Amino acid sequence: MTPARSGTALVLLSGGMDSATALYWARARSRSVVALSIEYGQRHRRELGAARELARRAGVREHLVLRLPVGPWLRSALTDRSRTLRGTGVRGGIPPSYVPARNTIFLAIALGIAESRRCDRIVLGINALDYSGYPDCRPEYLRAFQRLARLATKAGVERGAEPRVQAPLLRLSKAQIVRLGDRLGVPWERTWSCYAGGRRPCRRCDSCRLRARGFREAGRPDPLEPPG
Amino acid sequence: MTPARSGTALVLLSGGMDSATALYWARARSRSVVALSIEYGQRHRRELGAARELARRAGVREHLVLRLPVGPWLRSALTDRSRTLRGTGVRGGIPPSYVPARNTIFLAIALGIAESRRCDRIVLGINALDYSGYPDCRPEYLRAFQRLARLATKAGVERGAEPRVQAPLLRLSKAQIVRLGDRLGVPWERTWSCYAGGRRPCRRCDSCRLRARGFREAGRPDPLEPPG
Repeated sequence: MTPARSGTALVLLSGGMDSATALYWARARSRSVVALSIEYGQRHRRELGAARELARRAGVREHLVLRLPVGPWLRSALTDRSRTLRGTGVRGGIPPSYVPARNTIFLAIALGIAESRRCDRIVLGINALDYSGYPDCRPEYLRAFQRLARLATKAGVERGAEPRVQAPLLRLSKAQIVRLGDRLGVPWERTWSCYAGGRRPCRRCDSCRLRARGFREAGRPDPLEPPG
Repeated sequence: MTPARSGTALVLLSGGMDSATALYWARARSRSVVALSIEYGQRHRRELGAARELARRAGVREHLVLRLPVGPWLRSALTDRSRTLRGTGVRGGIPPSYVPARNTIFLAIALGIAESRRCDRIVLGINALDYSGYPDCRPEYLRAFQRLARLATKAGVERGAEPRVQAPLLRLSKAQIVRLGDRLGVPWERTWSCYAGGRRPCRRCDSCRLRARGFREAGRPDPLEPPG
């Protein structure tokens, strides 16, 4: 059954498979969608091209791309090519690809834009199950942000109507995300997951490994990968 | 009595009288200070020049200036010259100079940089007493942000050692801020408060009115204003 469409969603769109699924999930439930992509100095700028194409295909009302040159000031293997991305993540503590306060920065900017653009919700593709151990991808983190949003905004203080933060993939496995995306019609071949910044997926970083596991466990090939 | 100096403070420095006082307060208590100024499309860019000069005079270890081109997407009289700044603020509800989620955006960016730069605290000059009615200048807002910071960061999750958010002016009147700044040696003539974006203070915006009231009630002239 298709849910009734209402309201306007602001979707944080990185261009990876999770945010693409969140975009199509939001599109199925909203009258209109605004997508927001943030270029913060990540190695894998290729995902921004993926975000543009995904936004176009999904028919969003607006795709905002923010250049936030804060990367050199955030200590992370994701913004610093001299640090290694290999190995540690996926169930082994907080990995080197952790970017300090990244989701808080992204959600704060999304909150300001959502209130300004009268979006009644913010949708993001974070995931607490098959995840890389980031602290800002957990349900208790999201609840704390929602509470902050109520206190921080005019809409929250005056009417209890701050934008709702929704994370539809929060409790899904990567395989469940693949199945959900299949149902929603996500064009997987247009998504980009690899952290390493090459022209082809590296197949070794946490993001590549989680993606491969998801397609494998969902029992279907990744259209981005050549067969064999 | 002078408090012992320890740690590194990250100070959010706009260039106004409150953040200048926060800067000198942090300097008196810290081994080193990093200042962060954010250019978000505010009308009153002149305050950034004030921030540069204040950071230089205070001898900060580093002054980071972030260009965050998000202004056109935030609905506020402070970023949009077609909107009026006059009149409503100061005890009359949330005024048109409210910028949606501004302090949340600033604090989130400060949190990421503070964790990356190993700053043990974030200092900002917000004030809940002689203020303009902004929701994100209240004690309960700050407490909610601190709670979020604990859940959001590696330092918070692993060691309960996320940066502490300190707002030394939170419960001071503008006159008390003037007296505190006098004791700390704040060079008032280098601060800039006016929102309107002209070459001289407009004397009519909320910020000019609060500043004038502070100096008047502290019983001393504002060195930025010509006598008479």
